[in-house]
Amino acid sequence: MTLHQATGTPDTPLAAALDIGGTKIAAGLVSATGELIHRHQVPTPATAAAHTVFAAVAEALDALTGHPLWERVGAIGVGSAGPVDARRGTVSPVNIPHWRDFPLVEQVRKQPGVGERPVVLGGDAVAMAAAEHWRGAAREYRDALCIVVSTGVGAGLVLDGRVRPGPSGNAGHLGHISLDPDGDPCPCGSRGCLEGLASGTAIARRAREAGWHATGDGSAAAVAEAARAGDPVALAAFDRAARALAVGIANTAALVDLEAVVIGGGVAQSGELFLAPLRRHLADYATLSYTRDLAVLPAALGTDAGVIGAAALAFAND
Amino acid sequence: MTLHQATGTPDTPLAAALDIGGTKIAAGLVSATGELIHRHQVPTPATAAAHTVFAAVAEALDALTGHPLWERVGAIGVGSAGPVDARRGTVSPVNIPHWRDFPLVEQVRKQPGVGERPVVLGGDAVAMAAAEHWRGAAREYRDALCIVVSTGVGAGLVLDGRVRPGPSGNAGHLGHISLDPDGDPCPCGSRGCLEGLASGTAIARRAREAGWHATGDGSAAAVAEAARAGDPVALAAFDRAARALAVGIANTAALVDLEAVVIGGGVAQSGELFLAPLRRHLADYATLSYTRDLAVLPAALGTDAGVIGAAALAFAND
Repeated sequence: MTLHQATGTPDTPLAAALDIGGTKIAAGLVSATGELIHRHQVPTPATAAAHTVFAAVAEALDALTGHPLWERVGAIGVGSAGPVDARRGTVSPVNIPHWRDFPLVEQVRKQPGVGERPVVLGGDAVAMAAAEHWRGAAREYRDALCIVVSTGVGAGLVLDGRVRPGPSGNAGHLGHISLDPDGDPCPCGSRGCLEGLASGTAIARRAREAGWHATGDGSAAAVAEAARAGDPVALAAFDRAARALAVGIANTAALVDLEAVVIGGGVAQSGELFLAPLRRHLADYATLSYTRDLAVLPAALGTDAGVIGAAALAFAND
Repeated sequence: MTLHQATGTPDTPLAAALDIGGTKIAAGLVSATGELIHRHQVPTPATAAAHTVFAAVAEALDALTGHPLWERVGAIGVGSAGPVDARRGTVSPVNIPHWRDFPLVEQVRKQPGVGERPVVLGGDAVAMAAAEHWRGAAREYRDALCIVVSTGVGAGLVLDGRVRPGPSGNAGHLGHISLDPDGDPCPCGSRGCLEGLASGTAIARRAREAGWHATGDGSAAAVAEAARAGDPVALAAFDRAARALAVGIANTAALVDLEAVVIGGGVAQSGELFLAPLRRHLADYATLSYTRDLAVLPAALGTDAGVIGAAALAFAND
């Protein structure tokens, strides 16, 4: 495909996108049809001082403002690890400890070249959902929940054909619904949260607690390997996580009325090891007339979902 | 107020509304400003044959089509006990056993006088939420959950300033989210559902099981009376229900991002006996930066919420 095919006519606006996580910051120029035209990535100095973390964001952004197509950028979308505060334009990512109520939108606005362009902020999982709806597995659905199961559990909602950031920009935060009000305390302050049961971290912890002799790096991926080799403790750890996620999905479907669920992230990449028990448990908990036929689909976009989704937030705001 | 003030100019459209529940069927003519101009009510022959139940609906509707203002009606809104299927226009109310996939919309369309008017179907709790948003306690909020706690637990969602029926018309079904995946089987097929913990029925059952010597009619209202007199078992039954509802509210707020929660229904009319422990437990479970300042408000509309809300669904469809 030529550059012209990817970017449309010279009048077609582009979006700039930033995807800010605890390990990397990705920046991209994205066309109105969702093509990633240019991409630049820097590592996140996650534990550094606030201004040092922002200097990395500024470096990623410079790679866009210096691009020959920059003049066609109409708006800038920012997806950030949460929680975010879209009303105030601030972020307090759990895994970037020196950013607390950090004025990310204001700082981005001040960067050379940004000018008067609108800067739209949303949570990274909201951006991912926007991407799966725009160009991925949720494309055909007007009402969907898009989930990432990896170290943690994040999700975003598509309702009535549009991504829902919610007033704060954090809607879809499936990882912190409580499935056990008497359960273990969660770092969020609540108890028995889904993330503490269904994340990769939880799978690895559960397997170890149940007597699994950790192999490899002891991560959920190593548990998956043991499970594929038939280790019953490893299989049980995956089953428990799949059940918790199934209850969370069933609850969300009952609450907001969905057509489809899209699941991505490292744990979901274990494939049927995770998805088969998930579907089985879903049949036990998604029992209402309007929740029982939910489509369950693997995510279609890979690591670029964050950047493409941040661009989708920018275009949606135009 | 004169009829003219209530109904606007002779050109202002009205909506017709039907609120169909297990004990009564209410019909009304409602102005574009939400005034209930005319109201007619008949009992629901809930256990009768399907056509007998519909004959009661037809009788209620006749009281509208025969009204002098009928010609100004632009659309007909129907709120029905659920589950409903808004795509197909059918209803299967749990408490009307002979209505299973009953073609309510088609039958209403065939009634004399209805003509070509659109007929809009939604769940009764969706209609209630539409009413609280239009004229009640959720008026000032763009994102709210409106709950009825009585024999069961029903709710509806207002998102981005509009009620969300969802594709099936059942969105907001808080009563059937699971808060205890290993808990008691629920008639819905799932386990540990909120309704089995927080409804008036659950409060009365719990109090009896814990040794309360049932007084009066043995209902949640009688438990409330005992609690006000200081009975610790009765107080504990209310506290347990309030905690379950608090977890359900916190989960919904985490998932969809809300500004306010409106609570009505018989149990909520126990006032601070229910709302004080609810607020206390909410502080324990709604701990995220964007869920911790949720406004909790009593419902503002009484028994007419269903009719006014069904009219709101009709106007929203215009």
